[in-house]
Amino acid sequence: MTDPTTSGTEAPGGAGVRLMRPAEPVAWPDGRRAAAAFTFDVDAESAVLAIDPTSGRRMSVMSHQAYGPLVGVPRLLRLLERHGVRSTFFVPGFTALRHPSTVRDIAAAGHEIAHHGFLHESMVGLDAATEAAALDRGLDALEEVAGVRPVGFRAPMWELNWHTPGLLDERGFLYDSSLMDADVPYELALGPTAPGGRSIVEVPVSWGLDDWEQYCYLPDLSGSGLIEDPAKAVSMWRQEFTALREEGGCFVLTSHPFLSGRPGRAAALEGLVAEVAADPGTWTASLEEIARHVRGLALAPRSVLPLEEG
Amino acid sequence: MTDPTTSGTEAPGGAGVRLMRPAEPVAWPDGRRAAAAFTFDVDAESAVLAIDPTSGRRMSVMSHQAYGPLVGVPRLLRLLERHGVRSTFFVPGFTALRHPSTVRDIAAAGHEIAHHGFLHESMVGLDAATEAAALDRGLDALEEVAGVRPVGFRAPMWELNWHTPGLLDERGFLYDSSLMDADVPYELALGPTAPGGRSIVEVPVSWGLDDWEQYCYLPDLSGSGLIEDPAKAVSMWRQEFTALREEGGCFVLTSHPFLSGRPGRAAALEGLVAEVAADPGTWTASLEEIARHVRGLALAPRSVLPLEEG
Amino acid sequence: MTDPTTSGTEAPGGAGVRLMRPAEPVAWPDGRRAAAAFTFDVDAESAVLAIDPTSGRRMSVMSHQAYGPLVGVPRLLRLLERHGVRSTFFVPGFTALRHPSTVRDIAAAGHEIAHHGFLHESMVGLDAATEAAALDRGLDALEEVAGVRPVGFRAPMWELNWHTPGLLDERGFLYDSSLMDADVPYELALGPTAPGGRSIVEVPVSWGLDDWEQYCYLPDLSGSGLIEDPAKAVSMWRQEFTALREEGGCFVLTSHPFLSGRPGRAAALEGLVAEVAADPGTWTASLEEIARHVRGLALAPRSVLPLEEG
Amino acid sequence: MTDPTTSGTEAPGGAGVRLMRPAEPVAWPDGRRAAAAFTFDVDAESAVLAIDPTSGRRMSVMSHQAYGPLVGVPRLLRLLERHGVRSTFFVPGFTALRHPSTVRDIAAAGHEIAHHGFLHESMVGLDAATEAAALDRGLDALEEVAGVRPVGFRAPMWELNWHTPGLLDERGFLYDSSLMDADVPYELALGPTAPGGRSIVEVPVSWGLDDWEQYCYLPDLSGSGLIEDPAKAVSMWRQEFTALREEGGCFVLTSHPFLSGRPGRAAALEGLVAEVAADPGTWTASLEEIARHVRGLALAPRSVLPLEEG
Repeated sequence: MTDPTTSGTEAPGGAGVRLMRPAEPVAWPDGRRAAAAFTFDVDAESAVLAIDPTSGRRMSVMSHQAYGPLVGVPRLLRLLERHGVRSTFFVPGFTALRHPSTVRDIAAAGHEIAHHGFLHESMVGLDAATEAAALDRGLDALEEVAGVRPVGFRAPMWELNWHTPGLLDERGFLYDSSLMDADVPYELALGPTAPGGRSIVEVPVSWGLDDWEQYCYLPDLSGSGLIEDPAKAVSMWRQEFTALREEGGCFVLTSHPFLSGRPGRAAALEGLVAEVAADPGTWTASLEEIARHVRGLALAPRSVLPLEEG
Repeated sequence: MTDPTTSGTEAPGGAGVRLMRPAEPVAWPDGRRAAAAFTFDVDAESAVLAIDPTSGRRMSVMSHQAYGPLVGVPRLLRLLERHGVRSTFFVPGFTALRHPSTVRDIAAAGHEIAHHGFLHESMVGLDAATEAAALDRGLDALEEVAGVRPVGFRAPMWELNWHTPGLLDERGFLYDSSLMDADVPYELALGPTAPGGRSIVEVPVSWGLDDWEQYCYLPDLSGSGLIEDPAKAVSMWRQEFTALREEGGCFVLTSHPFLSGRPGRAAALEGLVAEVAADPGTWTASLEEIARHVRGLALAPRSVLPLEEG
Repeated sequence: MTDPTTSGTEAPGGAGVRLMRPAEPVAWPDGRRAAAAFTFDVDAESAVLAIDPTSGRRMSVMSHQAYGPLVGVPRLLRLLERHGVRSTFFVPGFTALRHPSTVRDIAAAGHEIAHHGFLHESMVGLDAATEAAALDRGLDALEEVAGVRPVGFRAPMWELNWHTPGLLDERGFLYDSSLMDADVPYELALGPTAPGGRSIVEVPVSWGLDDWEQYCYLPDLSGSGLIEDPAKAVSMWRQEFTALREEGGCFVLTSHPFLSGRPGRAAALEGLVAEVAADPGTWTASLEEIARHVRGLALAPRSVLPLEEG
Repeated sequence: MTDPTTSGTEAPGGAGVRLMRPAEPVAWPDGRRAAAAFTFDVDAESAVLAIDPTSGRRMSVMSHQAYGPLVGVPRLLRLLERHGVRSTFFVPGFTALRHPSTVRDIAAAGHEIAHHGFLHESMVGLDAATEAAALDRGLDALEEVAGVRPVGFRAPMWELNWHTPGLLDERGFLYDSSLMDADVPYELALGPTAPGGRSIVEVPVSWGLDDWEQYCYLPDLSGSGLIEDPAKAVSMWRQEFTALREEGGCFVLTSHPFLSGRPGRAAALEGLVAEVAADPGTWTASLEEIARHVRGLALAPRSVLPLEEG
């Protein structure tokens, strides 16, 4: 059982020193009020193969996933180009190997390619060595297919282990984008006992800014069983953007080409991309650009105190 | 485990030859910009008996399913006639045997009768011989009841096995409509090693263009537990139609008479049928007509690379 | 396995005699175009105790259910009185015994009290003798508490067995309201081999016209996990009413006082009650009144063919 | 099995004495028509650790929960201050120990700190001694961290046992806020046989007035899988407020800072807070203020009859 007396956010003795303080406000370039990134997780077949390896037998399910790299990505690349937006695409190694032309097309269009595991495998409960092997396998695939050494990482299923940030730092990653405890990026201290030590940049995400919960329908694999109207999803995301902009936050939307690459959804998304990209108070950029900017601010690293394991 | 190095979409050696390319654009008849089909899966009792054979004991559940052929189909036939739309009805063999008059009425109204399995049984993981037997049993039922030899097939639960297209070709089917990897129909190569060989026409579907996820409530059998407003469902489908038309795609809506045959849902659906059928830029047709048109284009067959089984 | 060759809807030999024909149109009194009934299932504690007997330990859950008879019913009685609507309340025997004053208040307000099982127990798979005992126990409770001998029945969970209609007929019930295969009431033949024999009136319901799927949230017991906006639910029901009225159907809405008795939901429901009750083309009545009218039409009984058990 | 003949709401013998009567109307201060409270359950990490202790390993999930005390609470405190609203924050002991500065900030802003269990553990089926220990552990944590002795309690998961009110009374609590059988607060008699005896004030809640069902998405832990639009949630809550105000009720909204503290949701909530707080006919107060007012009315205690255990 987790012992709260040893996992509190103040220094022992109750001296009022807040160890787990909130992320501090971030100043954006050129006097912009807020930042925004449109990110894409190119899960394709890997996301369902990781949930159930036998789903590879289901030709229709596989075709549903392949829609992402085959049709969704090209459509989204055209969409982004129309609005001059540079984005970040998180690509599992398996996707790179199965759909190499898609990954090269993304890179050729000037977007960032980042790491998203090998087979989009959940890392919950995995030891560091096993997780390191999957990280390296993903790196190899991106290198082999697209000649890319990514600086950014997003955990499959957004499931980071407490040891993952250290593994990322060892491999030279600049940033992670899998945590949900702030509205702005911050320097994440590597370990609770090293507040002044090494850190990586964290660019937080939010389940409320993800298309999976709105659109994903994969019988026996994932989803609530319902499929939402893009008008509802995008209206909700716009509301979040408006409120985040007001407070100087960093809007990070996650879309999946096999979901949001469908024509009606892409059209609804384009309305939001157009609005955000045209907003003079918002800096729309890739996560790499955002992370490099944050790194340049030399923020004090923020500790996130781990919990004892159950 | 699936080996991505042998299941990628490029020729071995990384020569950049893309084996699993996207479907190519389709030219529609008479200079139309796009195509549309309103299709109906007449599952009736079979869909729930296949999920749980003991559901046959549940008189109310059976009556809920029987609503489709008894009330929904006649209402939808009147609706289609009002707008001069020819549609495709996918009929499981069991439905044909239990509701023969309904099936004959569909055919008499000039619509296409197509194959939808025997008992709407999922074919996930079944071997080819077992699946072939179910296919033949379904063919026999449609022949016996309605004197029909169908040219089209849609897999129950939209679950195709990698060997299914070959079984369809052996039985002389012109087309399948169960995959989800394109916005337009294409020639589906039979086997990855035969790009220039035999093929069947594939007319893709999409879970987002299906009424099951919006309306299906079958306690202990299927559904999310929620029932959506037809206004929401049809608004979402209209948005998809509008975006697909813009890009020259093929809009294929799947409705179930036991669901969309209810008065309020049929009324909402009629608004969309009216709009699509009256659109001068859209060719509204049965899937058979669409597949014959595509066959006439002599497209190069497209390979869909199977995955190793898990 | 169900044998479709012996459970089809035509006479053996394929003579084209349709045994399971749709319900025929119903002529409504005084030249009205359609009928409507607002019905209430007063499940209270029984509905959750039947799902899980240990839920009786959960004081908060029990209080959530008790809201129905304690607060919801009085509010709904006031609502119905404001619009001069006579309704049908289906009352499980357990509810009558635990909340006798509520049941007497319903009767005193001039509404119909009908049978809804004893503990709202699902009868799926129960033999006739066991089901008969529950029926009699429910009859006894309504007699003891309210001096009522009901003429109407609605199965708990809307789960009728094939033998239930016969049990109802033996006990002198005039009608059942648990099937879903028509938009109008009909005479339900007792047994497929007795088309000209005994029958009871069936007044069909529909899962789409029920508040459970919209509002019910009972952790670990029932519900999708979501709670819908009354504005959505009532808009959907209004759409169904409008379409049914157009076709001369019988609109039967089912509400649960523990759900729709909440202030905001009752206010939304009142908008619909007001509209329907004021519509000169619609006959708003209790199910008993509707069933007596239908009985007076001397319709030919309709057979519903049972399925072999799985 | 529960025996309804001994758990009915009338005195034995059927004398018509209603034992479990509805709560009576409440007169509000200064001639106000209705009351309203905006309450916050600061579950943070505890809510998921209680569901699954191994979830402490999931760094991203923990960060999602930590968002509440780190970012959500400060934002909500600013929001409440803008509208001069005093609120009640239910704080599990674990949250107090892990996020002490947050809890002190809440108290420093003048809001009420109330009891919400120790680790937000469900007490379903726990014996009184075990439950008492958790209550005392929670009391100790609030005392140690914030120097607070709470007068109010809300059960984790809103799961009260029949013995819980007695445990609260023994510890000097003024009120509980976990039941759902009334639209107004009332005096809850401690035990069915003591209608004139001791009581605590109950301020009822409602699942329909809770943000969990609208926003909570915690894979493998909780939620329907969908995330709702704040516009929908707040519109529904406003509708309930409007209807409750009309009838003199007490509107009690429950929000979770890790959910409703997100920018777009807080902005939507602020619209409702502004409207309610500015309404001259509504008394907006903390639950402690409401409970003290109700205690001053010297209402006759209301019995809630327990059910036999299954």
